[in-house]
Amino acid sequence: MRNFKLTLAYDGTDFHGWQIQPGLSTIQGEITAVLRKVTQENIVLHAAGRTDAGVHAQGQVANFQTQSHLNAQEFQRALNALLPPAIRVLAAEEAGPDFHARWHAQAKTYHYRIWRGRVVPPFDWRYVLHYPFPLDGAAMAEAARHFEGEHDFTSFAASTGSEDEDRERTPVREIFRSELRSIAVPGCETIASNRPAVVGEPDELLFAVRGRSFLRYMVRKMVGTLIDVGKGRLALTDIPRLFELRDRSKSGPTVPPHGLCLVAVEYPEARRV
Amino acid sequence: MRNFKLTLAYDGTDFHGWQIQPGLSTIQGEITAVLRKVTQENIVLHAAGRTDAGVHAQGQVANFQTQSHLNAQEFQRALNALLPPAIRVLAAEEAGPDFHARWHAQAKTYHYRIWRGRVVPPFDWRYVLHYPFPLDGAAMAEAARHFEGEHDFTSFAASTGSEDEDRERTPVREIFRSELRSIAVPGCETIASNRPAVVGEPDELLFAVRGRSFLRYMVRKMVGTLIDVGKGRLALTDIPRLFELRDRSKSGPTVPPHGLCLVAVEYPEARRV
Repeated sequence: MRNFKLTLAYDGTDFHGWQIQPGLSTIQGEITAVLRKVTQENIVLHAAGRTDAGVHAQGQVANFQTQSHLNAQEFQRALNALLPPAIRVLAAEEAGPDFHARWHAQAKTYHYRIWRGRVVPPFDWRYVLHYPFPLDGAAMAEAARHFEGEHDFTSFAASTGSEDEDRERTPVREIFRSELRSIAVPGCETIASNRPAVVGEPDELLFAVRGRSFLRYMVRKMVGTLIDVGKGRLALTDIPRLFELRDRSKSGPTVPPHGLCLVAVEYPEARRV
Repeated sequence: MRNFKLTLAYDGTDFHGWQIQPGLSTIQGEITAVLRKVTQENIVLHAAGRTDAGVHAQGQVANFQTQSHLNAQEFQRALNALLPPAIRVLAAEEAGPDFHARWHAQAKTYHYRIWRGRVVPPFDWRYVLHYPFPLDGAAMAEAARHFEGEHDFTSFAASTGSEDEDRERTPVREIFRSELRSIAVPGCETIASNRPAVVGEPDELLFAVRGRSFLRYMVRKMVGTLIDVGKGRLALTDIPRLFELRDRSKSGPTVPPHGLCLVAVEYPEARRV
């Protein structure tokens, strides 16, 4: 058996998430169907993280085992020729026999984009949350840092399930970096009436979070909580308090999936391939 | 009668071009339908340039006359609330009574994007031509400058029709600027196997052209000709020769519409609104 590692990018808009589901178009389903057609084998595809419906990826990683004689470049070409343009194989490599995209992942980075201007450009509506109302960006940026470190994220999880539930059953997660960045979008300054309602605010807020692993809906609950901080509904000090409370009804809402993107997955040097 | 100026952006992928056509979804058709619903008048919408099917806009300009008592901001809000997210009104202003988006346009800028990497990111396939094969970028950049100035563009036009045929019946057009830019796309360097096939080539080539007005298919024929220069099928000196020849079968092909975007329309100071 040979083991291949794929680096994937996809626009999640028109798919029902990563995980294969009968009768629905999913990322795993589309890629698995092509691999089965090409190899005539019952291929099983493992991803670093199972992204939810509507979530995008710039650097998802997956692996599969096969007895096929195709090499990595041939797999990449066949997949890109047969998949819809919204799913692309950015890279394919032959990996060591025990490489597993989920079990060996050491860190994942997610981005969440919040569009602050009055009008969402027609090229971006699939990838941003539109939130044109006043927000205290400085408080949100400070609050974002409170997520860093090892914490019990029960208050920031879905009621059930985990992005990687096979691996960890505890709600404790380690976040290496959590920050809110202000983005000036090129071209926006030329259309004065499309600037944010509040003078001096950025066109876009980007929440970037890098952690070892995440609970289901965790990033989207973190963003909802940061927005509540920005609105003054929650205080900075509420975040450490929410770790203690372990009550998901007290944190912010789960924001919509389409602003979220799995940007990168990292592996230890010995597990690169 | 009041006269309103709209600045529009749209993703042309799912529309049959600007011009209203019975039974087909077009940009002019979608916007006109909303304006007629809102005003209960038989609104006629004039654009600076009639973009073809699949062509995008970041700064199309249009105007319409109405007896409505709605103000510019109310028109903008109503349109953005009722139009699909792929069509957005970036700005709306009340204009002088004789402002006409097409007749008074002084310059238009178009961009054409050519993706040079091996794989088109899933977020960009609607907006770029994929051309991953070797090209002499330096020759193309030099050739692009040959379009500048006033020339007979018969060799670079569709067999019939003009983007703005009401205004000018001559094939002579003035190009103020014509240049090919090399774009390094952020993030691309992290996926080595998705870099351009030829070392040192940019991820993307962007053709930017600013002119007073354009013949139908003119920008797409100019790009097709530049690609032929990049492939060595045409020489630099063939461009002045093509102006003389007045034979559209001798220039390069008409490249697909989806790489093209109407970026901006300019008006003289006295005609700004």
